[in-house]
Amino acid sequence: MTYPAPGRWESWLATQADARAAAGLTRTLRPRAADESVIDLAGNDYLGLARHPEVRAAAAEAAHEWGGGAGASRLVSGTLLLHSRLEQRLTTVMGQPAALVFSTGYHANLAVVGALADRDTEIISDAHVHASLIDAVRLARARVTVVPHNDVTAVRTALAAAGGRRTLVLAESVYSVLGDEAPLAALAAACQEYDAWLVVDEAHGLGVHGPGLVAERGLAGAPHVVVTATLSKALGSQGGAVLGPHALVHHLVNTARPFIFDTGLAPASAAAALAALEVLDRSPELPMVVRRRVDGLAGLLGVAPPAGAVLSVPMRSPQAALAAAAAALDAGVRVGCFRPPSVPDGVSRLRVTASAGVRDDDWAHATEVLLRVTKEYA
Amino acid sequence: MTYPAPGRWESWLATQADARAAAGLTRTLRPRAADESVIDLAGNDYLGLARHPEVRAAAAEAAHEWGGGAGASRLVSGTLLLHSRLEQRLTTVMGQPAALVFSTGYHANLAVVGALADRDTEIISDAHVHASLIDAVRLARARVTVVPHNDVTAVRTALAAAGGRRTLVLAESVYSVLGDEAPLAALAAACQEYDAWLVVDEAHGLGVHGPGLVAERGLAGAPHVVVTATLSKALGSQGGAVLGPHALVHHLVNTARPFIFDTGLAPASAAAALAALEVLDRSPELPMVVRRRVDGLAGLLGVAPPAGAVLSVPMRSPQAALAAAAAALDAGVRVGCFRPPSVPDGVSRLRVTASAGVRDDDWAHATEVLLRVTKEYA
Repeated sequence: MTYPAPGRWESWLATQADARAAAGLTRTLRPRAADESVIDLAGNDYLGLARHPEVRAAAAEAAHEWGGGAGASRLVSGTLLLHSRLEQRLTTVMGQPAALVFSTGYHANLAVVGALADRDTEIISDAHVHASLIDAVRLARARVTVVPHNDVTAVRTALAAAGGRRTLVLAESVYSVLGDEAPLAALAAACQEYDAWLVVDEAHGLGVHGPGLVAERGLAGAPHVVVTATLSKALGSQGGAVLGPHALVHHLVNTARPFIFDTGLAPASAAAALAALEVLDRSPELPMVVRRRVDGLAGLLGVAPPAGAVLSVPMRSPQAALAAAAAALDAGVRVGCFRPPSVPDGVSRLRVTASAGVRDDDWAHATEVLLRVTKEYA
Repeated sequence: MTYPAPGRWESWLATQADARAAAGLTRTLRPRAADESVIDLAGNDYLGLARHPEVRAAAAEAAHEWGGGAGASRLVSGTLLLHSRLEQRLTTVMGQPAALVFSTGYHANLAVVGALADRDTEIISDAHVHASLIDAVRLARARVTVVPHNDVTAVRTALAAAGGRRTLVLAESVYSVLGDEAPLAALAAACQEYDAWLVVDEAHGLGVHGPGLVAERGLAGAPHVVVTATLSKALGSQGGAVLGPHALVHHLVNTARPFIFDTGLAPASAAAALAALEVLDRSPELPMVVRRRVDGLAGLLGVAPPAGAVLSVPMRSPQAALAAAAAALDAGVRVGCFRPPSVPDGVSRLRVTASAGVRDDDWAHATEVLLRVTKEYA
């Protein structure tokens, strides 16, 4: 078979690639080995549970017992007793009435917004929420008001303007890039006053703050506070969950498209998250290790300590951030970079995860390296 | 803390639940055990690979070696050598230049449409495509023309009307509910003529047709035919993939939101899919078992043999379909039901998967049971 010369799509892709290259924004994948010697402070394995012996063993055992996949969507024959046990455990740990597990955290956010919101709904969204919540709003075709970051007054104004419409307020307990936390108590109070629901993404709060910031602030189980979580960060696995009232979970089971039309979470991933929750439950020192490390490093680098496990170190340019990260990697320490367009304020940063999974001597070495490279490229 | 009486959201959820109950459309989850004795013809484990010893062993070994999760998004530190090996293997088996793996098949479809389409794009979509492709189009905010199912003339008319716009035509190689296949050669020829791209979802074609129907029809590697696949059906795992030109994969790595903002596929799932591809490669008899079973059962039940592994048996009502499925389950055979609104033509059906993973004696028993219950409730 012969094919014609490059057509419209090929030309368009080439133009897009050239534009990225010219802006220095081309991204490439760098596969890593299982036994790499680098100290990884770039990932989201906040508590080191992805590689915890019990988590590995539980995942392996589930693969042996259940097989490689759930075999079907959850409503057909893809709900395993493992999923039920995981959902039960999540409710216990996070203090919620009911939970529903999804194959990714992205889907949990698409599902909860998509199943609740329609053209008659008002959504009030913090300006810094995750891409999955932004896509969820877009998919729901609801009216949306994006409010300035962590601005409770703006949320109240938007709530007052929503009138009698069913209204959702979207926030994250801990924001990834700036590392700050949402004013959860004030947001929940405003939502209660206006008969709205608050949806809080605990992607960066769960585990780092034990049962999550919603629970720490005494809001777990409040009927107007819905929580989403990911199983792929502090819990070291894959998947996501929505937690809240039974009526909400029942509604999601019946209507959420990313739940109904997706294969159930793989057995090994469900078992890994379940084991991680058990380790977390009896290891209150893990979040404290993160806290101590992140506070200590923030002090040394002269930046504000974040609410989560990720320390953001502002750099003077995207190039400086890249150069500092490259120098750190040369010294055996992998950190990430936040660069435009992934930063809400245009400031490039080093992204350093104070994981409890790193050995003390490795953390000490990493601290030295980071002090050096941030000075060198500041 | 006290909370007010049920508010707007609680009332709305109750109304929705009541409406579902009144229509007899309430769905509930029925968790299954690992050692259940029922013969499962409801799932999508078409070749029985989810429970293949090599697939289980590979998943378990990966969990031990790599841990419970990828630990980060693919572009940060969540690309494992396992992902690269899986992507390489997919390209070899499916005859494509390049592949990119996602955490679900749903994401693969959201990603490819979302990264290619925008307000300047025209999308021509078959009326029967999967929910994930429908959501993808909605998310992309592209102009869309939904054409009647498998109607190449309608596709050509829409292509002619698209003028100079970048155009995508969306189809599945094998459709789930009706079990029929797309006229791939005619669609590909039309797309080539009009300088459009054809996106083919091989969810139900891969494995059941060896390397997939696109490859079987000699279209693998055609620069204007893009393929998506799921790892959670015939490959017995979890995850999805987009396959096509290198420039497309490069574009997805750089722009696809469900790729960039999601944790990488869990190691056990990547390893399970990789092992399944290896088993598939050296077991050409597996697709033949499916073919023989599905053709045989179709003949016995007097329905047309489908192109895929799923046999649809029309029933006279949703109630009759449910009753027949319940009777089959009582006799130890689990089948699914297609009921409104999940059927494009409003006809309720039994959904019977002719899995190669079922033992011969179990298949013989299941055939007897299905003959009996379909007569009883026809």
